[in-house]
Amino acid sequence: MTSALTHLECPRCAQGYDAQALHNVCTACGSPLLARYDLDLVRRTLSRDALDARPQTMWRYAELLPLQDVAAAVSLGEAMTPLLRAPRLGAAIGVDDLWVKDESRLPTGTFKARGAAVGVSRARELGVEHVAMPTNGNAGAAWAAYAARAGMRITVAVPRDAPQITVREMAVTGADTIVVDGLISDAGRLIAEGCAEHGWFDASTLREPYRLEGKKTMGLELVEQLGWTLPDVIVYPTGGGVGLIGIAKALQELEELGWIGGRWPRLVAAQASGCAPVVRAWERGERRIAEPWPDAHTVAFGITVPKPLGDELILDALARTAGCAVAVEDGQALDELDRLAALEGLFACPEGAVTVAAARALREQGWIAAGERVVLINTGAGVLYPESVRRRPQ
Amino acid sequence: MTSALTHLECPRCAQGYDAQALHNVCTACGSPLLARYDLDLVRRTLSRDALDARPQTMWRYAELLPLQDVAAAVSLGEAMTPLLRAPRLGAAIGVDDLWVKDESRLPTGTFKARGAAVGVSRARELGVEHVAMPTNGNAGAAWAAYAARAGMRITVAVPRDAPQITVREMAVTGADTIVVDGLISDAGRLIAEGCAEHGWFDASTLREPYRLEGKKTMGLELVEQLGWTLPDVIVYPTGGGVGLIGIAKALQELEELGWIGGRWPRLVAAQASGCAPVVRAWERGERRIAEPWPDAHTVAFGITVPKPLGDELILDALARTAGCAVAVEDGQALDELDRLAALEGLFACPEGAVTVAAARALREQGWIAAGERVVLINTGAGVLYPESVRRRPQ
Repeated sequence: MTSALTHLECPRCAQGYDAQALHNVCTACGSPLLARYDLDLVRRTLSRDALDARPQTMWRYAELLPLQDVAAAVSLGEAMTPLLRAPRLGAAIGVDDLWVKDESRLPTGTFKARGAAVGVSRARELGVEHVAMPTNGNAGAAWAAYAARAGMRITVAVPRDAPQITVREMAVTGADTIVVDGLISDAGRLIAEGCAEHGWFDASTLREPYRLEGKKTMGLELVEQLGWTLPDVIVYPTGGGVGLIGIAKALQELEELGWIGGRWPRLVAAQASGCAPVVRAWERGERRIAEPWPDAHTVAFGITVPKPLGDELILDALARTAGCAVAVEDGQALDELDRLAALEGLFACPEGAVTVAAARALREQGWIAAGERVVLINTGAGVLYPESVRRRPQ
Repeated sequence: MTSALTHLECPRCAQGYDAQALHNVCTACGSPLLARYDLDLVRRTLSRDALDARPQTMWRYAELLPLQDVAAAVSLGEAMTPLLRAPRLGAAIGVDDLWVKDESRLPTGTFKARGAAVGVSRARELGVEHVAMPTNGNAGAAWAAYAARAGMRITVAVPRDAPQITVREMAVTGADTIVVDGLISDAGRLIAEGCAEHGWFDASTLREPYRLEGKKTMGLELVEQLGWTLPDVIVYPTGGGVGLIGIAKALQELEELGWIGGRWPRLVAAQASGCAPVVRAWERGERRIAEPWPDAHTVAFGITVPKPLGDELILDALARTAGCAVAVEDGQALDELDRLAALEGLFACPEGAVTVAAARALREQGWIAAGERVVLINTGAGVLYPESVRRRPQ
C-alpha cells in the first residue's frame, strides 16, 4: 500500500511540479494543480480483488492517494459511506433505479472530511504547521477537526450567515475562527492577506491540490460499491465543485487502470437558482469561465459559491461526460428534503436535497430516461441545518 | 448467516417466551425480557475468521441478532463505528492507553441507530404497523428514521427540554411527535396510555426486547476491533443503560462461544451528578432497584433518566464485572468536551464527555491503574447539542 504519486501537473498549461514541495496553484497560468500517479505501476501491483480484502475505509485506495505513509494518516475513522437504494423516493420522482451516496456518515457529518483527512495528512507530511482557509462552514469544521487531531494550527474565515452549528464546531476544536460580513469570496480575500502576511499555508478550495484527492475517493467508492459497474447519471450539488471534479478524476484513473469500461456516467452539476454560475455558463456554451453570480443566496448555504475557482474543470467534466448543469428553486429543494426523510428515513442537508429536485426536473424533461440508474450525492447531515425543517411537532 | 435466536427469557424468573410472537416485559414478574440464542450451533457453524470476511457493518453478527432474514433488515447503512486511539487526551487525563468508540458515525448520529435498526426490522418481521415510545430525543430520532425507511407508523413523546434538533429530526421523517411538559418518565406514561388505547406496539426502552440486541453489537464490534482481546475498563454514559446491559450481554455470549477468555473488562456506569440514580444505588450496595432521582437535570440530556427500567440489569452488570458507577458535574463534563475536541478533533455529545470526566476521576482515585486499557463510549455527535459549546469565535 504505497502511494504511486509522481508529481503535480497543471491541467491547463501542462507545467509539472515536484510533489514533495508545497504548492498552491500553477505559477505560470493560475490554474489549480492536479496530482498525477504512476498508473502503470498501480495496474501491475494492485488488483480489484486485492482491494476487496482491505479495511472498508477511504484509505483502501492508498496507491491512488498522495500520502507517502498512509498508516500515518490523520484519521478520525473514515468508513466507506453507504450507497443506499431509495426505491420509494425513486417511485415518487419517476427514477426507479435511484441510489443515494450518504456522505453524512463521515466525521463531522459531511463529505468535507474526505478532503480534510487527505489535505491535513499531506500538509503534515510536507511540514505545514499552520493552515488557513475561507469556508461556508462544513469545510472549516472538517479541517478544524483534522487539524486538531494532527496538532496543527488552523485559521478559518466564515461568512456571518453560515450555519451556526458549523461555527460552533470550528470553535470547539480550537480553530482561530474569524466571522466575516460577506460571502465566501470576501472570506477568501481575508485569508489570502493573512497567508501573505503570516506565512500560513493557503488550503482554500483548489488552491491546495490534495483536498481534491480526498474527494476523489467518493467516486472510487461508489463505483466499487456498484461492483465496478457505472451508473448512468451522478448528480452532485455544486458550489466549489471539488467533489464533481474529483469524481471525474476517479473515473479517469479507473479507466486508465482498466478497472472500468463502457460509457461514463453523465455528471450533473446541481445548483440552487439563487447561486447558479455554473448553470448559467453551461447554458451559454461557455467551457472555461463561470462569471461571478451577483447577490448569491440560497438555503443550501454550502453551495453558495458565486465564482468557483475550478469553473473550467467543472465545465470540462460536464462536457466530457455528456452531463449537464441544472438549477432548482429553494422551495423545490426543501420539499424534496421532506420527501426524502419521510420516504427513506434519510434527513439530508439542503445541498443533498438540491440533487433530488434536480433529478426530478431532469426526469420530467426526459434528460434522464426511464430505467436509468441514478446516484445522488448527499453531501452532509440534515442536523447541521435544523432550520431547514419546516414541519413542526403537534 | 441465519439467526440462532431460540426464544425470549425473563432474566429474573426464567419464564420463557415464544420469540415468534410479540412481547413486551415478563407477564409474570415485570422484568425486561432477553433474547436467547443457540450458541452451540453458532460455535459449530461460525468462526471468527469467517466473520472477518463479512461486510464491515453491524449486520455481520447475523447469527447473534434476532432477525430471521438479515438481508431484509431495515437499513440506512450501519458501518462499524471507529474505535479511535486518543493519545493526547489520554496523556491529559493520565490514561495512556485510551480509546474512544465513536458512535456518532451511525445514521442519525447516535448509537440509538443500532437499537432502532434491529428493533424496527424485527417489529416489521413480526407484523407491527405502528410503534410508539417516549424519548429524550436521540432514540426517537433514530426510530423515526428507521420507521420511515420501513414505511411503518411511529408515535414519539418527547420532553419539551429535549435537544431541539432531535425534535426536528422526528418531525421531518413524519413521526407523530408529541411534546410533553415533563421528563421522559412523564412521556412514558402518555405512551403507555396510547398503546393501551390504540394498540400501538410499545417500543419503550427494555419494554421491547430487540433494541438491546442492536446495542449489543457495540460490544461485539469493540472486542473484534481489538483483535478479540478485552480492554481493562469500558466507560459508558448511563441513562436507560441499554448499551451497558448490551455490552455485558455481548461479553457473555462471546465467552460462551469461546471467542474471548480471561478477565472481563470492568464496566463503569458514568452518570451526571444531576441525575445519578444508578450511582446512588451502587454506593448504597443496592443490587436490584435504583430509586427514582428527584428533580433530575443535566446538560447531558440523553441520560436524564430518573428511574431506569433496567436498573437491576445495570447493577448486575457492574457487580459481575467488578465495575463501578460514578457521577460527574456538568461543568467537568463540558470542560472535557472542549478538551476532547481540541486534543483529538472529536466533537462529542455531552454524554460522551461525561465518560471522559468519569475516567479522569477514576484514574485520580486509583480505581483505574496506570497502563490500563480504557475504552470510552461516545454515544453521539456533538452537533446535536450545539449549545454545549461555550467557546465563541473572534
